[in-house]
Amino acid sequence: MPSLNDAMKKWNTPVEMLRNSQAGMYVYPVVTPEFQNWRNEQAAWRESAVLFDQSHHMDEVIVEGPQATEFLSHHGINSFANFDLNRAKHFVPVTPNGHVIGDHIIFREREDKYILVGRAPTSNWLMFAAAWGKWNVRLRHDPRSPSRPEGERVLREHYRYQIQGPEAYKIFEKMNGGPIPDIKFFHVDWINIGSKKVQALRHGMSGAPGLEVWGPYKDKDYIHSVILESAKEAGVNIVQCGSRAYSTNTLESGWIPSPLPGIYTGDGMLADYRDWLGADMYEAAGAIGGSFVSDNIEDYYVNPFELGYDFYIGWKKDDFIGKAALEKIKAQGAHRKKVTFEWNREDVLKVIASGFEEGTPYKWIDFPQPNYASSSADMVMQGDQMVGMSMFNGYSWNERCMLSLGVVHKDVQVGDVLTLRWGEPDDTAKTSTEKHKQAEIRVRVSPTPYAKEARENYADSWRTKAAE
Amino acid sequence: MPSLNDAMKKWNTPVEMLRNSQAGMYVYPVVTPEFQNWRNEQAAWRESAVLFDQSHHMDEVIVEGPQATEFLSHHGINSFANFDLNRAKHFVPVTPNGHVIGDHIIFREREDKYILVGRAPTSNWLMFAAAWGKWNVRLRHDPRSPSRPEGERVLREHYRYQIQGPEAYKIFEKMNGGPIPDIKFFHVDWINIGSKKVQALRHGMSGAPGLEVWGPYKDKDYIHSVILESAKEAGVNIVQCGSRAYSTNTLESGWIPSPLPGIYTGDGMLADYRDWLGADMYEAAGAIGGSFVSDNIEDYYVNPFELGYDFYIGWKKDDFIGKAALEKIKAQGAHRKKVTFEWNREDVLKVIASGFEEGTPYKWIDFPQPNYASSSADMVMQGDQMVGMSMFNGYSWNERCMLSLGVVHKDVQVGDVLTLRWGEPDDTAKTSTEKHKQAEIRVRVSPTPYAKEARENYADSWRTKAAE
Repeated sequence: MPSLNDAMKKWNTPVEMLRNSQAGMYVYPVVTPEFQNWRNEQAAWRESAVLFDQSHHMDEVIVEGPQATEFLSHHGINSFANFDLNRAKHFVPVTPNGHVIGDHIIFREREDKYILVGRAPTSNWLMFAAAWGKWNVRLRHDPRSPSRPEGERVLREHYRYQIQGPEAYKIFEKMNGGPIPDIKFFHVDWINIGSKKVQALRHGMSGAPGLEVWGPYKDKDYIHSVILESAKEAGVNIVQCGSRAYSTNTLESGWIPSPLPGIYTGDGMLADYRDWLGADMYEAAGAIGGSFVSDNIEDYYVNPFELGYDFYIGWKKDDFIGKAALEKIKAQGAHRKKVTFEWNREDVLKVIASGFEEGTPYKWIDFPQPNYASSSADMVMQGDQMVGMSMFNGYSWNERCMLSLGVVHKDVQVGDVLTLRWGEPDDTAKTSTEKHKQAEIRVRVSPTPYAKEARENYADSWRTKAAE
Repeated sequence: MPSLNDAMKKWNTPVEMLRNSQAGMYVYPVVTPEFQNWRNEQAAWRESAVLFDQSHHMDEVIVEGPQATEFLSHHGINSFANFDLNRAKHFVPVTPNGHVIGDHIIFREREDKYILVGRAPTSNWLMFAAAWGKWNVRLRHDPRSPSRPEGERVLREHYRYQIQGPEAYKIFEKMNGGPIPDIKFFHVDWINIGSKKVQALRHGMSGAPGLEVWGPYKDKDYIHSVILESAKEAGVNIVQCGSRAYSTNTLESGWIPSPLPGIYTGDGMLADYRDWLGADMYEAAGAIGGSFVSDNIEDYYVNPFELGYDFYIGWKKDDFIGKAALEKIKAQGAHRKKVTFEWNREDVLKVIASGFEEGTPYKWIDFPQPNYASSSADMVMQGDQMVGMSMFNGYSWNERCMLSLGVVHKDVQVGDVLTLRWGEPDDTAKTSTEKHKQAEIRVRVSPTPYAKEARENYADSWRTKAAE
């Protein structure tokens, strides 16, 4: 099997390789596109309760062994000092150069056992790291479900459901047969779902308080039935969320799912990693989409300060990968910060209108999720200057507008009106986009998280600490 | 199990029942929503070649036995006189009152064996008819795949692929290892696909000549691989079509997939049928969506003359179900005819723009397929007069416009500009639509089929005979 390094040799730059990926859309697999319709499904997390089936779209990695904590602590920026068994964390690994690789949610199941859930770049990095170093750890990898199973059966290690929304707690109480424990944000406890005792994480992807529950995949149908039945008994209009609406929930809560892993450059461990990674893996087969085209792939990288993850950093740890680089960034101060871009209505409608005209239209804005790559990078301009990068977009029925998440220069202020270049400047081999021309869309810089609900009701976390 | 009749008793009218269905969208199941992106996939059937995977969205019924021909001839309007083994037909059953029940493609596999493929109403009617009468036939029913399998395995009796587009023939020649037989429209012959001999129907859902092939489901992956490999060798850009683009191909070719089966009224055989039908079946669980609301469900029915199917009618047959009723309609002349409605760009954009405003917006137009029920019925007005009914809609990237298929009063002329009422006048329990207000959308009456390609290159069939 050729490696990422082998794949990269066929192109002038890794940017060129990724911009010409033919992997197609980044798919949220297996879960039906719509249960009701994506507008109702978006409204549910704001107005009543939504049920996310998160069993399929993320990798899971189980890390166990005498050195599990040491291993993870060394490969993530996070402090592990206060990592009790009843807690979860937002685990962020960076490269030796301080660039974000990805992020996972990490659960501590035992003193010497962790479960991590998230996109492939973090899983791959950890699997490599365990093999590259001398660690007494055992890793088990359950990759995300196939993007296009076309009727073949799909099994996972765990089912994973999340219930969110202002009426979610009524369902928990009904399921639990009484008040549920007062679980703090990103803490874990056990609740009853019918006859099963199930672990629950206090979470809130959609900005409202909710729980994420998981267990053996064979229990999935049972848990699903009990949730729906309990909602009915509690008189709550729970709406199952399909894959079309699902990915947009992050726009209101402010998490950027898809930073490009900063692993295409650098020597030593990073060069070895590129030899280890297969040419069929996320890092080689994924796609960069958007108007930002640079010869230097490092221009697409982000660091934890820019994403608002700096307060996770365990500075007191003796060492961890990237510590020196992060110290340097800290000393200099981060140049960018995370924001939400609110797209101008008239400009969006101008783009849509071009789909009703002869000739080459502007890049189609597909609702509710127009991203057309595993990592998006659209230029955000102030006059002739590029002052930011839009990294994840979508339409919010709740806000009745197009939003995107990204980073801007630190001098940009909330309320500033900038211009997003929408669509690619050239034709690539990318199969996920039709032939199009570029448009300019005005965007207003807004806080992260954007949603009023999320801003007001969210627990103390990176979401509220960033860009305010 | 309660019957359709039982279900109907809970409502004032069957219209009320169907307008409040909570079945959700009519789903095109199992096949991935997008392989590339739906714009490219639509363009492929016009510009190069498209691969439709039709293995999952239709029922199949196998009818065999000494009376197979007699049974089918009695329950369909079609002439069976010229039904050789190498032919297929577009089989249309009507009620004793002459209302269309549905339609299937019917293949004759042996003298005494037929395979039928299509939506549930025709399958259900035939299964009932075989039980209700005294027929020496055996029916085997392979229902369409589940709408939301959520990772469970799905198996069918047959795979079914269709390859369409101006360059499709190059792929057939490559697969066949030489020129393919000159199969006439709706005729069947055998071709080679790799090491397999496969039956092929000359068909053309997307308006360009193409072939539909089928065989045992276990061969699906092999056939799929050979098709893609042959396209590559032939230098043809074949694009696999996902479920989002798939349903829109009919807009360009002019087939209305979803007439409401005319079975909710009438006594005798029809009353018995409503006792036979289960409350979980298509006829009871399906949905009517759209602006047209009538207390009388017969106002939603159509007859074969209105759909342009009248030239199928086997008038020379001694008798068949509905013959007397059709003779009466023929004597009076049909009041309506099938047309394509071309939606006004400005009005469509006005509807879309409302999704970016506060308050209750117009009914969302979801791209490329805004239908939100198993049967759609939107009022088409000339001033205050309802002069037509729009029955199936969608956006065509090839034509760069919204189109719908439906019927209009016979006096309406191609080129007339009418008004389509978009959205429902009231709130129903339908889960497939968000809360909305109604809009008026101007529509220009156009021929069926709409596509210039289809109009010019299509074989002599109902598609070109209707409404011209």
